[in-house]
Amino acid sequence: MSKVISEKKLHDEGKVWVFNKDYIAEFVYGGIDGAITTFAVVAGAAGASADLTWVLIFGFANLIADGFSMSVGNFFSVKADRDNFEKHKAVEYWEVDNLREREVEEIREIYAAKGFEGELLEKVVEVITADKDIWVDTMMKEELEMTKDDKTPFKTAFATFASFSVIGIIPLLAYVFAALFDFATDNLFMMSSIATGIALMFVGYLKSIVTNTRWVKGVLETLLLGGLAAFLAYFVGEVLARYFLN
Amino acid sequence: MSKVISEKKLHDEGKVWVFNKDYIAEFVYGGIDGAITTFAVVAGAAGASADLTWVLIFGFANLIADGFSMSVGNFFSVKADRDNFEKHKAVEYWEVDNLREREVEEIREIYAAKGFEGELLEKVVEVITADKDIWVDTMMKEELEMTKDDKTPFKTAFATFASFSVIGIIPLLAYVFAALFDFATDNLFMMSSIATGIALMFVGYLKSIVTNTRWVKGVLETLLLGGLAAFLAYFVGEVLARYFLN
Repeated sequence: MSKVISEKKLHDEGKVWVFNKDYIAEFVYGGIDGAITTFAVVAGAAGASADLTWVLIFGFANLIADGFSMSVGNFFSVKADRDNFEKHKAVEYWEVDNLREREVEEIREIYAAKGFEGELLEKVVEVITADKDIWVDTMMKEELEMTKDDKTPFKTAFATFASFSVIGIIPLLAYVFAALFDFATDNLFMMSSIATGIALMFVGYLKSIVTNTRWVKGVLETLLLGGLAAFLAYFVGEVLARYFLN
Repeated sequence: MSKVISEKKLHDEGKVWVFNKDYIAEFVYGGIDGAITTFAVVAGAAGASADLTWVLIFGFANLIADGFSMSVGNFFSVKADRDNFEKHKAVEYWEVDNLREREVEEIREIYAAKGFEGELLEKVVEVITADKDIWVDTMMKEELEMTKDDKTPFKTAFATFASFSVIGIIPLLAYVFAALFDFATDNLFMMSSIATGIALMFVGYLKSIVTNTRWVKGVLETLLLGGLAAFLAYFVGEVLARYFLN
């Protein structure tokens, strides 16, 4: 855990810890999506009373394809956020060089709004605009309200992929074992549901850390989300199977 | 489009427009996930030469379950970010009341780092700490580097759900029509691939707006992502089908 504690500040007096939530957060949301995507296949199959073969084919097709696309998509979106920040920063530097007067006036307005006036305000503007980096930093935070996200796309994408695969394969495990050691049982769906439930509770617990909420809230929220999604999949599977297979 | 232009600022001189990316962004990422999830089922089925019935059963089971979980998950995570911001803000107010001296010193350090010194620095600290709201706002931006996100969870969740469903159903349409009007054709997968490709190109174009990049980049990136994911699903379907069905 220590690795994810933010350097910025520990709100210890306030009894709130600031985590660098980037990577646990990716793990949590990747894991939830992974488990729900494959469990949707399992539940849909159960609703349609489909053969174990189809659970494995569609389960793994979704696990691989969605895990891949989710993590690559995550890479692109995190990278895009960083690029967007840098792009606006570059624009601010451009403006400071080419529209100096207007940008000085903007700093004046920003600090007037903070309650500065008269000579003191002018002195403040002088100091801020004396250093181009501090000037631009002020514009980014006060005018655009943008702060740089220190997540790196590779790490967030990897965390997403790892959790999507590891958590996402859990709903399929009972079916994998049934196929490998071909033991026949009618309880595969039940086994899978229990395994998935435990996995979702674990991820829900991590989620409560990420979101600074009570663990009960995180666990129940996540369990309920997965349960409802599975119910929908089961229902769709059953209805469509009744329509097509009879 | 005008609705999504940020109130904060148009970087027009810099030839960069700042969009309020919240809702297009959700639409883009929801749409990509929707199309890829259902197209993974279609491609996996094609690889396994599975019957149209299974495409519809597992396609819709995933469309409904993932669309539901993704949008509800989005709701929780956006809400969590807002709550987290408010929680830290409350902590800062608590610290300003209960650890006044230390918080005054922190403001002094923040402005010393900006190049203020001596009497001017003291005057600045005085003005900032004279107004509790400005004081806390400064701590949030400068110390915690947190700015408030003006996204509302309901809107982001709805945008996610809408795009996930609307874009996500596209890969299934050819199979739906084939089932409804039962026309027999071997080209369903090809039709679905073309429809999905067009959908991904459209979403990729929107993505380039969200991420402020050239439209060619957004379109090709998204198309390639979907294509590779589908290839993986097809491959998995084919291998598992060969293993189980022969």
